Amino acid sequence: MPAPTEFLDFVDSNADAFIKRLGDAVAIPSISGEAAHREDVEKMAKWLDEQLTAVGVETKLVDLGDQTLPDGGKLKLPPALLGRIGSDPKKKTVLLYGHFDVQPARKEDGWDSDPFTLVVHEDGRLVGRGSTDDKGPILGWLNVLQYHFDHKKDLPVNLKFCFEGMEESGSDGLDDLVKKESQPGGWFHGADCVCISDNYWLNTRTPVLTYGLRGLTYFSIHVSGPSRDLHSGVFGRTVHEPMTDLIALMGKLVAGDGRILIPGVEEMVPPPTEEEKAIYERLDYSIEDIEESAGAKIAIADDKIDALMGRMRFPSLSLHGIEGAFDGSGAKTVIPAKVSGKFSIRLVPPQTPELIEPLVTFFLESEFAKLKSKNSLTVEHLHGGKPWVTDHNHWNFEAAKAATRAVYNREPDLTREGGSIPVTLTFADALGVNVLLLPMGRGDDGAHSTNEKLDRSNFIEGTKLLGTYLYEIAAVDQ
Amino acid sequence: MPAPTEFLDFVDSNADAFIKRLGDAVAIPSISGEAAHREDVEKMAKWLDEQLTAVGVETKLVDLGDQTLPDGGKLKLPPALLGRIGSDPKKKTVLLYGHFDVQPARKEDGWDSDPFTLVVHEDGRLVGRGSTDDKGPILGWLNVLQYHFDHKKDLPVNLKFCFEGMEESGSDGLDDLVKKESQPGGWFHGADCVCISDNYWLNTRTPVLTYGLRGLTYFSIHVSGPSRDLHSGVFGRTVHEPMTDLIALMGKLVAGDGRILIPGVEEMVPPPTEEEKAIYERLDYSIEDIEESAGAKIAIADDKIDALMGRMRFPSLSLHGIEGAFDGSGAKTVIPAKVSGKFSIRLVPPQTPELIEPLVTFFLESEFAKLKSKNSLTVEHLHGGKPWVTDHNHWNFEAAKAATRAVYNREPDLTREGGSIPVTLTFADALGVNVLLLPMGRGDDGAHSTNEKLDRSNFIEGTKLLGTYLYEIAAVDQ
Repeated sequence: MPAPTEFLDFVDSNADAFIKRLGDAVAIPSISGEAAHREDVEKMAKWLDEQLTAVGVETKLVDLGDQTLPDGGKLKLPPALLGRIGSDPKKKTVLLYGHFDVQPARKEDGWDSDPFTLVVHEDGRLVGRGSTDDKGPILGWLNVLQYHFDHKKDLPVNLKFCFEGMEESGSDGLDDLVKKESQPGGWFHGADCVCISDNYWLNTRTPVLTYGLRGLTYFSIHVSGPSRDLHSGVFGRTVHEPMTDLIALMGKLVAGDGRILIPGVEEMVPPPTEEEKAIYERLDYSIEDIEESAGAKIAIADDKIDALMGRMRFPSLSLHGIEGAFDGSGAKTVIPAKVSGKFSIRLVPPQTPELIEPLVTFFLESEFAKLKSKNSLTVEHLHGGKPWVTDHNHWNFEAAKAATRAVYNREPDLTREGGSIPVTLTFADALGVNVLLLPMGRGDDGAHSTNEKLDRSNFIEGTKLLGTYLYEIAAVDQ
Repeated sequence: MPAPTEFLDFVDSNADAFIKRLGDAVAIPSISGEAAHREDVEKMAKWLDEQLTAVGVETKLVDLGDQTLPDGGKLKLPPALLGRIGSDPKKKTVLLYGHFDVQPARKEDGWDSDPFTLVVHEDGRLVGRGSTDDKGPILGWLNVLQYHFDHKKDLPVNLKFCFEGMEESGSDGLDDLVKKESQPGGWFHGADCVCISDNYWLNTRTPVLTYGLRGLTYFSIHVSGPSRDLHSGVFGRTVHEPMTDLIALMGKLVAGDGRILIPGVEEMVPPPTEEEKAIYERLDYSIEDIEESAGAKIAIADDKIDALMGRMRFPSLSLHGIEGAFDGSGAKTVIPAKVSGKFSIRLVPPQTPELIEPLVTFFLESEFAKLKSKNSLTVEHLHGGKPWVTDHNHWNFEAAKAATRAVYNREPDLTREGGSIPVTLTFADALGVNVLLLPMGRGDDGAHSTNEKLDRSNFIEGTKLLGTYLYEIAAVDQ
C-alpha cells in the first residue's frame, strides 16, 4: 500500500511551514549536558508535548527523577515524553523513538551563524544545532501526523512514541522507563516493531537502513609506582617508571593494520558469508569516501569490502590517551607516579563485554608479569555495551525498503554502524521485536560538530519516507 | 690552614640572628616563574645588594634586558647581582654562584604553613620556600662575610659573586653575562676556581662534593593523520590511528630495566673503571635510600653500585607523556588526530645532544617506516645540554674535602648528579677553571616541593663549611 498522493503533495506544499516549525524547535537550546540549559530541555519537552497534543496524540510527560552529578550533587532530569495514537487491533503498532535534547554549541566554537537560529541556505542546507540530531527526524513524524490530523485521516498503523531529553548525556533514566513501559499495561506494550531515526546515511547520496551496531567495552589500565611524581634526572634508570611499563602494555594491544592482538578476541568473530560480502560490495561507499571523511589518505585497506567490514563487521581497538602523564605543550622532565592508559574495543557478535573483559585482563596481567617490573598494574573495566545485529529481511525492514524505493526511487544501502546507539538494544531486549534504524540525514550533517545541518530535501523527502514507511508496514504480508 | 676558632664560635653564637636573616629573605616571594612576582625578584636583588654592601662587598646590579614570553610579550628580567671583595694578587680568587629566585608556592598546594614565612621547628627544620634552594646557601656566604666584616678580618681569598634571579626559569640572560664578564676586564676574569652551592646531599647524613652532572636532550615526536579528531566507532579499524603508531614507537625506546634501545646510544659510554667502582661502593647510599626517596620498592637494581651508576654514570630515557591525546578522567572514545610523544634522554660523557639527535631521528624514522602507516611522523628536538664531569682530585675539591673533614669530621661522598645544573657548564666553559658543587642541604629538603626546608644544623654547620673551605683554598699546595 503506497502512501496517498495527497500526503506526498501535502508535504511538498507545506515544506516552508515545516521548516519554520523546525526553526522553532532549534530555537530552544535544549542542551542536556549543561546544567544551565536543563530548563530549556524541559521547555523543549513541553513544546513537543503541545505539538503532539495538537495533532491528536495522547501524551504523558514522565518524571525521571534526579541525575546524580560527578560531584555528588543532584540535578532534576528532564521528563521523557510518551505518546500514543490509534488502538485498532487490526493494525500493526509501531513504536517510534527520538530525542529532543541536543549537543552543546557556541558560536565561538566555529559556527558561521548562531547555532540556535535555523538558517536556510540557498543550497538547501538548514543549519542549526539539532537540525539533524535529532529534532529534524522527530519533526518528520510530526509532519506525518499533521497531514492525518488536518485531513481527518486515520493513520495506517497505531503509533506509540518515546521521546527523551537525555540522549546526548547517557540517556539517564531511560532504560528503567522502557523496561517498565514494555510490561503488560505499559505504554509500549504490544508494539510490533520499533523504528529509530537517529543515525545517518553513509554518504550524501544513498538512503540507508541500518541493521547492526558495534558494541563497546572501555578499559583504563593503571600503572603506579612511586608515591609522587619524580624528577627524571634524579630517578631516571634508577626506578621502574610507570610510563615505560604502560607504553609497553599499550603497544601490545593492536597492530597497525587494526588487528586486535589480545588472544581470543579476533578468533571469536566468524568469517563473513558470501551473502554478507555481497551486501558490502553493493554499498555506495568507497575508500575515497572514507579518506574524504577522515580528511587524509589514511585508509588501512585498499579494498572497499575490507574497509567497510573494518568499520562495521569486525571489532576495533583504539588507544585514546593517557591520564596522569605530562600532557601539556613544551617540555617537562617528569616521571609520572601513576598513569592510566585508556582504550576501548568496539565489539561485534558474538562478542560481549562480559566475554571480552577476562581475555583483556588475563592478557594484560600476563604481559605485565613478563616485564618484571616492580610497579603495580590494575586493569579497570569502565563500561560497555553489547553489539546488536538484527534480521534485515524482517517485514519491518521490507516496509522501509519499499518506502525507500517509492520515495527515492532506489534500493537503500543496508549498513551496520561502527558506533553504538544503546537505546536500540534497550528496545530490542525489552520488547523482543524487530528494531529498524531509519536515518533521515546525510553522512556529512556534522551531528556533534559545528554548523550542524539537515538538507531541505532530506527533511522533506525524509518526511515522505517516514509516512510511506507506515503505509508499507500496513501493507506487509507476513 | 683551618678556619679560625673565633669564626666557628661566631657562627654558633650568631645562629639565631642568621636564621632571622634567612627568614627576612624567605619573606620576599621572589618567584621568577610568575609575572606577578617579578617585582619581588627585583626587591630580593636589592635586599641582597644591601646585605652585601653592608659587609664590605663592592656590587653591581646588571640589567639583563627583557624576557620574551611564550605569547610573544616582553617582561623585564630581574637584574643579576655581581660582587667582589679583595684583590690581593697573592691570594686565590674564588667565584661564588647562587640564585635568589624561588619556585612558585601556595599554601593550598599542601604546605603546612605559609610558604613565605620561615617556620623554625623544634626538630631543627627551617621550613619555607627558598630556605634550601637557594637562599640558605647564599646567606651562608653572607654569614661568612659577616664574621670578617664584624671582626675587621681580611678574607683568606679574594671573592667574586654571581647571584642571579632567573635560575628557576631557565637562567634567562645569564649565559651572555657570564661569557662577557669572564673576558679580560670583566668582573669574573681571573677567578681561579668556581664554587656553586645549589644541590643536595645524597641522603640526610653525609656531606657531598659533586663532580659530574648528566646532560639532557629532549624530543617530541609528532604523529598526525586525520584532519580532525575522529569517532572510534565510525573510524576504528578503518584508518591508521596516530596513537597506535605513536605508542608503537614510544615502546621501542627503552627497556624495562632502563637500557636505551636506540642503537648507538648505550655503546657510546665507556665501561666504568675499577677506581670509579670504588667511589660508588663508598657512597653512603643504599637501595633502601632510593626506595624510601621514591616512596615505593621499585628500584631496578639489586646492587648498590648498579643502582647509583644508573643514576649518575649511565644515560637514562624517560617517557614523559603525550600531548593531544585524551588526558582527562573518565572515558572518551576519541581517535586523536595529532599526538606528540615527549621523552628525554639524560646524557653522560662523551654523549652530547648533537651526537645523540641523529641517532634518535634515524631510529624513529626507520621504525616508523616498518609500521607501514599512512600517517606522518615528525621528530622534533626540543632542547638539550651537555653533560659535565670534572677532576675530583683538583685542589678546589681537595680544599672542600679538608673543610668537610674539619667541620663534619668525615670524608665527603663524591657524587655525580643525575640531573643538570646548566650554569655549571657555562662557568666551566667561559672561565676554563675547575668548578666545585658544594651542597649545603640534605637529600630530603624538598627543593621544588611543598614544605621545603633546610635543617638548622645544615645552615649553621654549612656556614662553617663554606668559610672553612675558603681557608683551605688559601692553604692548598698546588
